[in-house]
Amino acid sequence: MSSPVGPSAPSNLSAAAARLARQIEFIVEVDKLKDIFRQTVTTQTRRAENDAEHSWHLCLCVIVLAEHANCGAALDVLRVLKMVIVHDLVEIDAGDTFAYDTAGMAHQHEREAIAAERIFGLLPPDQAREFRGLWDEFEARETPEAKFAAAVDRFQPMLLNCRTQGAAWNRHGITQDRVIARNQHIAAGCSELWTYAERMVQAAVDAGHLQPKPAA
Amino acid sequence: MSSPVGPSAPSNLSAAAARLARQIEFIVEVDKLKDIFRQTVTTQTRRAENDAEHSWHLCLCVIVLAEHANCGAALDVLRVLKMVIVHDLVEIDAGDTFAYDTAGMAHQHEREAIAAERIFGLLPPDQAREFRGLWDEFEARETPEAKFAAAVDRFQPMLLNCRTQGAAWNRHGITQDRVIARNQHIAAGCSELWTYAERMVQAAVDAGHLQPKPAA
Repeated sequence: MSSPVGPSAPSNLSAAAARLARQIEFIVEVDKLKDIFRQTVTTQTRRAENDAEHSWHLCLCVIVLAEHANCGAALDVLRVLKMVIVHDLVEIDAGDTFAYDTAGMAHQHEREAIAAERIFGLLPPDQAREFRGLWDEFEARETPEAKFAAAVDRFQPMLLNCRTQGAAWNRHGITQDRVIARNQHIAAGCSELWTYAERMVQAAVDAGHLQPKPAA
Repeated sequence: MSSPVGPSAPSNLSAAAARLARQIEFIVEVDKLKDIFRQTVTTQTRRAENDAEHSWHLCLCVIVLAEHANCGAALDVLRVLKMVIVHDLVEIDAGDTFAYDTAGMAHQHEREAIAAERIFGLLPPDQAREFRGLWDEFEARETPEAKFAAAVDRFQPMLLNCRTQGAAWNRHGITQDRVIARNQHIAAGCSELWTYAERMVQAAVDAGHLQPKPAA
């Protein structure tokens, strides 16, 4: 068990203090999420967004948009928040996979599951199980909470893309049909948000910020 | 009311769609939080942390450490999370005030209250009231939830400072006595965390990363 100055220092802690120290080592480890960069750029300086900022922005989306969830007031907002807070931690080891990188996606879940073992395993066992369960639930996209979390996770980068003249889409040659195909599961968690997103994407095409499907 | 391509576009939305569009403009506006930089540096590259990353890191601290709150299981974790998600939004207009900048703190709350009016006022009125209420509760530090939120808000930068050899403290000549005086209200929300923090600070002094109180 590590002491307050770091993992290499000696320890003379009670079990309760050792549990807290272990939790704090986890909090230090996940600071690395601030250096995992995404393809999406921020609206102000148009630099690459990192996973920690993205995760915060999703939290904000959740508390602002929860009322629109398909399941209505039955949505367990706390569980949605917990999911979005931890959903990208696996990328500390596995890296970010761009939403349109089909090659990268082939082994994505495998790499991320190995990362989940290590990263959540830093916590005390009961919390490791809880956090791993949240990540598994998010990945499976079966519960109303996971569907809503996935909806905001797909909507937020679309929104940033639309407000930066399609920066990430254009850099990677992504066309409207791929944006629609990749993100339409937003409707499973929040059909109102998908209606908005479809209009937003069409507006981006009309403005010349996103290319339509190429002719066959 | 704005359309999906931005505030200047014409609108032909229903009341429900207009409400959603207004909420999404708020979500776009607060993207600016990613460019509000703090004195604290990250553990990996030692660049300045921004408010969005900091807010995410607090969310993570809340869900990992909630069990240690002084009020125990009575803690409303969802309300704590909502508070930490929105607690720094006022800094979009008011800027970050370093925890040890006593001159800057003189008019801090005044500047931030003006910012709160504008920023939360972007939301539909019912949500503007809810979010403003969360920020007021956080600032007043009277409820168990606000005390716990304030505890993690003070602990997280101390932790990053300790794990970066006191980078921000040393750059500003902050000494141990000021660290203790400024952060001891952590104990009001989470006395276990304060016990840990005191040991951590002493370890930083012992390691030469934080200077003790200067002789009178």
